Amino acid sequence: MKYSELFAKTSKQIPKDEVSVNANLLIRGGFVDKLMAGSYSLLPLGFRVVTKIEQIIREEMNATGAQEILMPLLHPKSIWNETGRWDSAREVMYQFKKGDKEYALSFTHEEILLDLVRKHIQTHRDFPIKLYHFSTKFRNELRAKSGVLRGREFLMKDLYSVHGTQKDLDKYYFEVAASYMKVFERVGLKAIQVEAAGGVFTEENTHEFQVLCDSGEDEVIYCPGGDYAQNVEIAEAKEGQQCVLGHGPLLKAKAIEVGNIFRFGTVYSEKMGVSFTDTGGKKQYVYLGSYGIGITRLMGTVVEVSNDDAGIIWPDQVAPFKVHLITIDNKQLTIDAKEIYQKLIKAGIEVLWDDRMDVSAGVKFADCDLIGIPTRLVVSKKVGEGKVEVKARNSDETGIISLDAFIKKQDY
Amino acid sequence: MKYSELFAKTSKQIPKDEVSVNANLLIRGGFVDKLMAGSYSLLPLGFRVVTKIEQIIREEMNATGAQEILMPLLHPKSIWNETGRWDSAREVMYQFKKGDKEYALSFTHEEILLDLVRKHIQTHRDFPIKLYHFSTKFRNELRAKSGVLRGREFLMKDLYSVHGTQKDLDKYYFEVAASYMKVFERVGLKAIQVEAAGGVFTEENTHEFQVLCDSGEDEVIYCPGGDYAQNVEIAEAKEGQQCVLGHGPLLKAKAIEVGNIFRFGTVYSEKMGVSFTDTGGKKQYVYLGSYGIGITRLMGTVVEVSNDDAGIIWPDQVAPFKVHLITIDNKQLTIDAKEIYQKLIKAGIEVLWDDRMDVSAGVKFADCDLIGIPTRLVVSKKVGEGKVEVKARNSDETGIISLDAFIKKQDY
Repeated sequence: MKYSELFAKTSKQIPKDEVSVNANLLIRGGFVDKLMAGSYSLLPLGFRVVTKIEQIIREEMNATGAQEILMPLLHPKSIWNETGRWDSAREVMYQFKKGDKEYALSFTHEEILLDLVRKHIQTHRDFPIKLYHFSTKFRNELRAKSGVLRGREFLMKDLYSVHGTQKDLDKYYFEVAASYMKVFERVGLKAIQVEAAGGVFTEENTHEFQVLCDSGEDEVIYCPGGDYAQNVEIAEAKEGQQCVLGHGPLLKAKAIEVGNIFRFGTVYSEKMGVSFTDTGGKKQYVYLGSYGIGITRLMGTVVEVSNDDAGIIWPDQVAPFKVHLITIDNKQLTIDAKEIYQKLIKAGIEVLWDDRMDVSAGVKFADCDLIGIPTRLVVSKKVGEGKVEVKARNSDETGIISLDAFIKKQDY
Repeated sequence: MKYSELFAKTSKQIPKDEVSVNANLLIRGGFVDKLMAGSYSLLPLGFRVVTKIEQIIREEMNATGAQEILMPLLHPKSIWNETGRWDSAREVMYQFKKGDKEYALSFTHEEILLDLVRKHIQTHRDFPIKLYHFSTKFRNELRAKSGVLRGREFLMKDLYSVHGTQKDLDKYYFEVAASYMKVFERVGLKAIQVEAAGGVFTEENTHEFQVLCDSGEDEVIYCPGGDYAQNVEIAEAKEGQQCVLGHGPLLKAKAIEVGNIFRFGTVYSEKMGVSFTDTGGKKQYVYLGSYGIGITRLMGTVVEVSNDDAGIIWPDQVAPFKVHLITIDNKQLTIDAKEIYQKLIKAGIEVLWDDRMDVSAGVKFADCDLIGIPTRLVVSKKVGEGKVEVKARNSDETGIISLDAFIKKQDY
């Protein structure tokens, strides 16, 4: 992609009404645009990041045997009345009337999923069912000041599993927990699995996946050795207390929740009458698990934990492009850069080429650091024909290398 | 994918409350599930079809130089007030109040797109801008009886282009028209380009893309030679009238609209104050084009025009799988089928394997015809080891061939 043609260039203005690092950098870098508080458009750069995050999650979900679907966002009141959440979740849900019909917007999908499942199951052989979708969630957040970390409208991957026994649900629940850890690692985040309360969703304890970060809204108490972690809301241990396994004092830290998993058991299936005939010929309510990862929040979390004064530092796996190619000096070199650009594309390397002729080298370098693509390549007189100056975004070292050698070193 | 593990099997029951062929076949085949009138979940099979349609469209949009983004679905009243559509489109739009804020759900995105653009443009060098997204549209349809052809909630690809001159808009408008014809051809549909009225969108004439079909809600007058086609709503010629170019009498037919394109010009940009400084230093309002394809409607249209008494007949390019593998006879052959299944996957051929042991051959054949995958492969005693019986969904002929020869014949 040529930078001259990319929609939404960088901006020097610090966005007003934005206090979060993620919104500040994502807006200035041209990744997102704010429509209203808690609601953002994904611009081409941001869309590329989200697409990569989604593909990583899709691969890991499929690896657990889950199947991708897409459920509607506009729901009839009747389904939410079956579980009582039309009333109990009234504050967070957008509800409205049109003509003589009442609707809710999706703030989660357990009810819709169970309605789908009850029409398609008969016997114990129909389980387990593992279905996920990438879709929009709407939540009436009173304070939406954390950029893409807490939106009134945001993208989520939600997976639901339905089982014939509690044992089978437990087994898959921990399989998904392991799958989630893989997702966060591949996205470039160090997450820890934390025990937490179920909030409006369930009275049972659940597990959250937290990324330690000073700007997080959550707080966790955890053992540095990794054998204990709880959200402060339910924590039984205190900061400074000695870890019983000898890992030293427990630590307390702010954190961003990037995922959570719930074992609802039969709570909702009983209310909605979702049952099957078990091996003994008896009617049995199904066991439901629910597993969420906020996609746009994940993008924001990466930005919160991976940046410096100059801008974002994208991990390789979710960067919008792999290479940021910059031309400096003169026209002759722009022609050279075009060849290099085309060779990179031919080699299957995703490249953003800053081909602007009317902008100084300094401006190009600053934009490059702000956007945060992992590898910067510079073509200039000084570097010489057929060669490029290479610099990693997360390092100050530069080196000069022939283009062919650079291409060979990439593992695409 | 093993059919035993696929969520949502076929159903013999004709869905109540559904009068359309597309809903009937898509529900019975296990492609979609109805949540409420005009709203469907995409099940794994349906999701696969939609993903393929989206990929074809994505490739063709990118080929015109357009960039993919994602705009929000929940909109503030203030933006819709700028063009007056908060009031003029009140019937079709879902509008509601939460706390002291008023919102609308996306029934189209011109206003949101122009708001985005006005924040990012300055000079004539910023044009053309070509942005598209795949997203959800909500429309308060009074009659939602056409299955996925007319939903209250549905998937749409909408592309918007913004230009500095009318001439540049015109040029791109016809480029998109050509691109749309490629999309429909690749999806397996014969569409014709038809002149039409702009409806609530514009007072200018527009172009629709219509697929002739008796169950269509539209009616077109067209020349069989392809040089004239108008929606009856605006048609200047009459059925039976002679084509001036000698192609014989004009025909009238029912049709399904699968796409439409609009040249809004400066109508909305004037109302929203979206302007730039032109080459002469003068303030100029931008020229807007808008181009839509209904994704779920496209899937429904394929089903409407491509089916027989036994079920759906998917065109190759959008079929959920390329091959439907069926085992009959006994356990021994199931083991053989498993090898064949794995060989097909290894060869990169998408295959749905009906691995059920407790179902008769007759039921499997009927399910296969209902689901409508292009190629049926049967493994049985009669056929013999290492061989498969091949039958195309749209033909009655069968042939026996070695698996290796079958794989070689596929162009994947």
